[in-house]
Amino acid sequence: MIRVGVNGYGTIGKRVADAVSAQPDMELAGVAKTQPNFEAHTAVDLGYPMYAAIPERAPLFAEAGIETAGVVDELVADADVIVDCTPSGVGAENRTMYASYDTPAIFQGGEDAAVAETSFNARANYDDARGADAVRVVSCNTTGLSRLVAPLSEAYGVEKVRATLVRRGGDPTQNSRGPINDILPNPISIPSHHGPDVRTIFPDLAIDTMGLKVPATLMHVHALNVTLESDVTAAHVRQLLEGESRVYVIPEGFGLDGAGKLKDFALDAGRPRGDIWENCVWGESISMEGRDLYLFQAIHQESDVIPENVDAIRAMTDAADAAESIERTNRTLGVGL
Amino acid sequence: MIRVGVNGYGTIGKRVADAVSAQPDMELAGVAKTQPNFEAHTAVDLGYPMYAAIPERAPLFAEAGIETAGVVDELVADADVIVDCTPSGVGAENRTMYASYDTPAIFQGGEDAAVAETSFNARANYDDARGADAVRVVSCNTTGLSRLVAPLSEAYGVEKVRATLVRRGGDPTQNSRGPINDILPNPISIPSHHGPDVRTIFPDLAIDTMGLKVPATLMHVHALNVTLESDVTAAHVRQLLEGESRVYVIPEGFGLDGAGKLKDFALDAGRPRGDIWENCVWGESISMEGRDLYLFQAIHQESDVIPENVDAIRAMTDAADAAESIERTNRTLGVGL
Amino acid sequence: MIRVGVNGYGTIGKRVADAVSAQPDMELAGVAKTQPNFEAHTAVDLGYPMYAAIPERAPLFAEAGIETAGVVDELVADADVIVDCTPSGVGAENRTMYASYDTPAIFQGGEDAAVAETSFNARANYDDARGADAVRVVSCNTTGLSRLVAPLSEAYGVEKVRATLVRRGGDPTQNSRGPINDILPNPISIPSHHGPDVRTIFPDLAIDTMGLKVPATLMHVHALNVTLESDVTAAHVRQLLEGESRVYVIPEGFGLDGAGKLKDFALDAGRPRGDIWENCVWGESISMEGRDLYLFQAIHQESDVIPENVDAIRAMTDAADAAESIERTNRTLGVGL
Amino acid sequence: MIRVGVNGYGTIGKRVADAVSAQPDMELAGVAKTQPNFEAHTAVDLGYPMYAAIPERAPLFAEAGIETAGVVDELVADADVIVDCTPSGVGAENRTMYASYDTPAIFQGGEDAAVAETSFNARANYDDARGADAVRVVSCNTTGLSRLVAPLSEAYGVEKVRATLVRRGGDPTQNSRGPINDILPNPISIPSHHGPDVRTIFPDLAIDTMGLKVPATLMHVHALNVTLESDVTAAHVRQLLEGESRVYVIPEGFGLDGAGKLKDFALDAGRPRGDIWENCVWGESISMEGRDLYLFQAIHQESDVIPENVDAIRAMTDAADAAESIERTNRTLGVGL
Ligand SMILES: NC(=O)c1ccc[n+]([C@@H]2O[C@H](COP(=O)([O-])OP(=O)(O)OC[C@H]3O[C@@H](n4cnc5c(N)ncnc54)[C@H](O)[C@@H]3O)[C@@H](O)[C@H]2O)c1
Ligand SMILES: NC(=O)c1ccc[n+]([C@@H]2O[C@H](COP(=O)([O-])OP(=O)(O)OC[C@H]3O[C@@H](n4cnc5c(N)ncnc54)[C@H](O)[C@@H]3O)[C@@H](O)[C@H]2O)c1
Ligand SMILES: NC(=O)c1ccc[n+]([C@@H]2O[C@H](COP(=O)([O-])OP(=O)(O)OC[C@H]3O[C@@H](n4cnc5c(N)ncnc54)[C@H](O)[C@@H]3O)[C@@H](O)[C@H]2O)c1
Ligand SMILES: NC(=O)c1ccc[n+]([C@@H]2O[C@H](COP(=O)([O-])OP(=O)(O)OC[C@H]3O[C@@H](n4cnc5c(N)ncnc54)[C@H](O)[C@@H]3O)[C@@H](O)[C@H]2O)c1
Repeated sequence: MIRVGVNGYGTIGKRVADAVSAQPDMELAGVAKTQPNFEAHTAVDLGYPMYAAIPERAPLFAEAGIETAGVVDELVADADVIVDCTPSGVGAENRTMYASYDTPAIFQGGEDAAVAETSFNARANYDDARGADAVRVVSCNTTGLSRLVAPLSEAYGVEKVRATLVRRGGDPTQNSRGPINDILPNPISIPSHHGPDVRTIFPDLAIDTMGLKVPATLMHVHALNVTLESDVTAAHVRQLLEGESRVYVIPEGFGLDGAGKLKDFALDAGRPRGDIWENCVWGESISMEGRDLYLFQAIHQESDVIPENVDAIRAMTDAADAAESIERTNRTLGVGL
Repeated sequence: MIRVGVNGYGTIGKRVADAVSAQPDMELAGVAKTQPNFEAHTAVDLGYPMYAAIPERAPLFAEAGIETAGVVDELVADADVIVDCTPSGVGAENRTMYASYDTPAIFQGGEDAAVAETSFNARANYDDARGADAVRVVSCNTTGLSRLVAPLSEAYGVEKVRATLVRRGGDPTQNSRGPINDILPNPISIPSHHGPDVRTIFPDLAIDTMGLKVPATLMHVHALNVTLESDVTAAHVRQLLEGESRVYVIPEGFGLDGAGKLKDFALDAGRPRGDIWENCVWGESISMEGRDLYLFQAIHQESDVIPENVDAIRAMTDAADAAESIERTNRTLGVGL
Repeated sequence: MIRVGVNGYGTIGKRVADAVSAQPDMELAGVAKTQPNFEAHTAVDLGYPMYAAIPERAPLFAEAGIETAGVVDELVADADVIVDCTPSGVGAENRTMYASYDTPAIFQGGEDAAVAETSFNARANYDDARGADAVRVVSCNTTGLSRLVAPLSEAYGVEKVRATLVRRGGDPTQNSRGPINDILPNPISIPSHHGPDVRTIFPDLAIDTMGLKVPATLMHVHALNVTLESDVTAAHVRQLLEGESRVYVIPEGFGLDGAGKLKDFALDAGRPRGDIWENCVWGESISMEGRDLYLFQAIHQESDVIPENVDAIRAMTDAADAAESIERTNRTLGVGL
Repeated sequence: MIRVGVNGYGTIGKRVADAVSAQPDMELAGVAKTQPNFEAHTAVDLGYPMYAAIPERAPLFAEAGIETAGVVDELVADADVIVDCTPSGVGAENRTMYASYDTPAIFQGGEDAAVAETSFNARANYDDARGADAVRVVSCNTTGLSRLVAPLSEAYGVEKVRATLVRRGGDPTQNSRGPINDILPNPISIPSHHGPDVRTIFPDLAIDTMGLKVPATLMHVHALNVTLESDVTAAHVRQLLEGESRVYVIPEGFGLDGAGKLKDFALDAGRPRGDIWENCVWGESISMEGRDLYLFQAIHQESDVIPENVDAIRAMTDAADAAESIERTNRTLGVGL
């Protein structure tokens, strides 16, 4: 049993905690939170040991009627692996603390690549993380891109990727974030940081990315162009992607024309939180013009990195090889729509 | 066992079907749909017998690989009660068909009150629906208002209700509806139709309502003023509402400051589709100025009427009294946050 | 000629500067800005003397090719009246500086009432500001409410005001503000601060307000209930409001059903920036139920306080009485749709 | 004097009417409208002769106190050129009527290319429209793309264009259009119709386009990639675009990071309706990776085609050559930020 601690229990942290709990070969040592809000109460209902992420705030939990098992240091000391799910930048600050307890740590994509030896995507470079002390699971967008680049470059060779990332302005709970009524080039400069981030996984990839931010909360949408090295048909590419376990090729007749309906589909299917761990590629959009592949995909920013975190835990602890881990994670979570 | 058919399998219909399936004293005879979209595929996965709502379109289901059990008439003939969940206005057109099979029918709040003998809210007038052949479960907003008016008028007497309904522009799946960036008085004339609709439940109530429509999809929010007939404290009102099984009084420290977080809370708690069947009244907002009560509540338009439909089925078939039915519905669904 | 300086050249400041420039009895001494952004360039094109609001940043203006006439202190020293249009809270910090030059100062509604001797609305309490050294022009919402309360209480007596303020989440330029997809009670506690703010103008008024924030940028919308002391008809109230120079009663046949169309109407009419200085009351919404008046009005947050600032300048310098000033301001700006 | 009639007086029509009125060599014969809404009242204030677009509705204008000069047929008969600004598809229905009076007609981009002999963009193919009887001014998006393709292909040669068009869901007045909270691939199939539409102007251009629709109303944003035939620097491209009269290269220090601020800038500058006739290309975004040019541009859908309509009138009547017409249009309207 791998004992896993989760530090930072927000959008990503709570999903990682649930996913870890669902693994037969893992055990949730506990979660560390800064404040006793609604998420803390649900954690208690789920029986997750609660640690105070900021020791001075521990009394707030008691006042709110929530028993704590200790403070975050104790959780880190106790865990075999700690998954840091704190806001961007805080992870880097926590690094020394994790190292001081010799606890291998996983960071999220909001951190700079330098936070860890290895940036990680299960499909693309699982082995790079084996035995590592610090691993960064790349961001939701980079994960989404990596899952396409890996099979495409293996099957056909990739000459160049050009991606426009139309990003949601904030998650559904982030009600102070905008924009309300604008389409923002973000960053305005090109290429955006997403391209270099993909190169932490595929160092030699030629990729240029452009980012925008729009008033939507449900999913990102990528408008993707990949110039392949081979001449292939769209049907062939589609078949390739349909064979990927973490890619869902949206069938034509389903009426799934946007994120609202994709989320409803996931909710109808009984997915926890309506999570969509898979890239959602519109089948109808997969097109070839010469060697230029085009497609649209939607990425559920809140959850696509969750199976990757689970796999990263196994890679770091050398508990399984890539194929085994991915299969186990997929089966226990229910990946595959 | 009460055999229940559901005609119209969209936002409301799919939830009614699931809720009926969860009742020990009911059986889902089947659902009727117009087209084999994603919702049809999920219904099949759930094992719901599928009927073609429009006979000529039955072949489309076959083409999509979905077996149908027949056409809607057969479902109506077979069911003890039919729940009509078709779009506003279509229910009225279906009335004669239901009557021709002598199948008691439940209609939704999008229909005019004249569609049925009785408009229905379980908390307020369950007995009016006992043995009725046609019942209309009132709309999401009217349900939300009725659940407050009932206890307030019983406990304190209500002199007058003034409600401003800030309504979501569309459900999350309705991606062609607006507004995108506007606040629309809707209707512009005052009072809006909501007040008279509440009077189908409380015929003598003095109530004036104003409606608006805004660019949000998650929940409606009501800004409510009730002039009571007695002098009471806000604390007393709060206690009263906390005693209501279909009202959730949001605790202060939970950080639940809007619909985005309320939905996340429901999703975290494992609610199917993140549904919130209860009125969500902000505890902190409950205030008294003289005999004027003020409060804010959020109403999950997609689901608050679901327990009401279940109770309406029992009322019409005289299968239980109000208290029994409400308790059974609440228990089987998991009402109560 | 009253020499007027404007400190803070953003949404409100640039409009005040233009409005002052349009007055025959006033002269714009200059404007103070913190940074040489697009608004600074337009100011230069308009020939407005530019002062550096933060002396250390003066070189940035030079680098951007913008000549400055000095720093803010010089502007304050030079002006007969300074209009502070800095962000909420900054005005209070500037108070001492203005006092040190003995320059009478006008503050905006983002400041606490305590910032000035008098809170001001031209229609309601012009005379209170005569000769004052510090005046606060109340916020856009309070201005909008005051313009209705004044005539209603004069004509009929007001027993109680209950107002729900459905506020825009941010101005069109404020692209980092949300919410994106939520309806937020804001503040959650009732009454909101707006009621007390209206009482800075009408000390004895019984008024309870509820505030919300929604994903829209164009205008606020108020759902208003006023219990009058007299029995009157809706037609009578409408006539009363049609007689108010800063209230526009939207005619029925114009198809103006929201802020988007109201703004287009103002733009079509050649209004500078499409500004709507008047309260926009939907004629069709004006209704009486007993002594309860109901109506909807839209308030253009960016501009309704502009004529009030102009009048406040005249009041403080005792340059005209209320009727004269209001008439002159209206005529020079073009108030009256 | 060219006598110009405008049929359809909405978003585009009212702007065309104003632009025509501002031309020294043109005269507005009148405008035809279907209903006497707010726009009709403003037209009357501007002294535009009003014609009933639907003869049976003429009495509605009289009831609204608006005098009509006749019905649309009379306007068509009287005009030297008619500019059709009716909704998509209606223009094609009007074609025969225009032909029956031998009145040359201009159609808008909502019509299929087949509606006219020639599709038109002043910068790219002015001469094709000389003397034509029917011309279609291409859509806002196609106009925006053509203004970049023309100089780029002249200066460097264009190997291929790949454009992602992030389109506003509706204009500010279109308050029933969505989406409210979604990012919609639209159309889902690739390439979108925009590429072929650009080829009505540049028949041999290799161009692939992807379209999306998002919850914003102010401007479209294009994420553009152009593979050039020459090796050039970004600085060189920037200089080229800065030399184009209908392209505004946004300077870095202006803080213009989105459409909200661009519109404010235009409004501050006194532009009628805050119109931005120019493509707005972010200077900071202009980048070269090898021969791949990347940039972001914002397109004001409501107004970028207006100068093109004016030029099309001159081309069809052979009143000026391209350079003369463009210069005159730019000068009279004030094109050039
Ligand atoms: N939300 C997404 O869309 C998304 C997707 C992929 C990756 N990420 C990355 O995941 C990380 C977490 O993001 P999130 O969206 O879950 O953020 P979040 O704000 O939802 O959650 C962060 C949690 O950490 C807590 N926290 C703050 N300071 C802390 C501290 N010092 N110690 C412990 N906990 C602390 C916060 O209270 C909060 O509960 C970031 O690096 C982010 O970039 C986010
Ligand atoms: N969505 C809400 O917020 C909400 C809340 C309370 C009540 N209601 C009411 O519930 C009813 C259903 O609304 P909804 O939101 O579920 O609508 P919906 O559009 O989500 O679902 C309606 C379903 O009925 C199907 N349908 C259309 N015509 C049909 C026909 N002739 N026969 C059978 N099925 C047909 C549609 O294909 C769709 O699947 C309406 O009266 C509505 O006013 C809706
Ligand atoms: N925008 C509205 O809707 C609105 C309506 C009514 C009243 N108000 C009030 O008007 C005031 C100004 O608001 P706004 O919307 O114009 O804000 P804004 O942010 O648009 O403009 C404020 C300007 O002040 C500048 N500034 C910041 N610090 C400064 C300093 N120390 N000295 C000088 N200038 C400084 C900023 O750079 C900016 O240009 C606030 O009190 C606000 O509450 C705003
Ligand atoms: N709005 C844009 O963003 C935009 C941009 C470029 C091109 N266009 C194109 O311009 C054309 C007009 O679009 P719009 O946005 O101005 O539409 P709009 O709806 O704003 O205006 C159309 C006007 O035509 C009137 N109308 C309807 N039927 C008519 C008829 N039979 N005869 C005369 N008038 C009639 C309508 O009442 C309305 O006033 C369309 O082809 C559209 O695709 C629009």
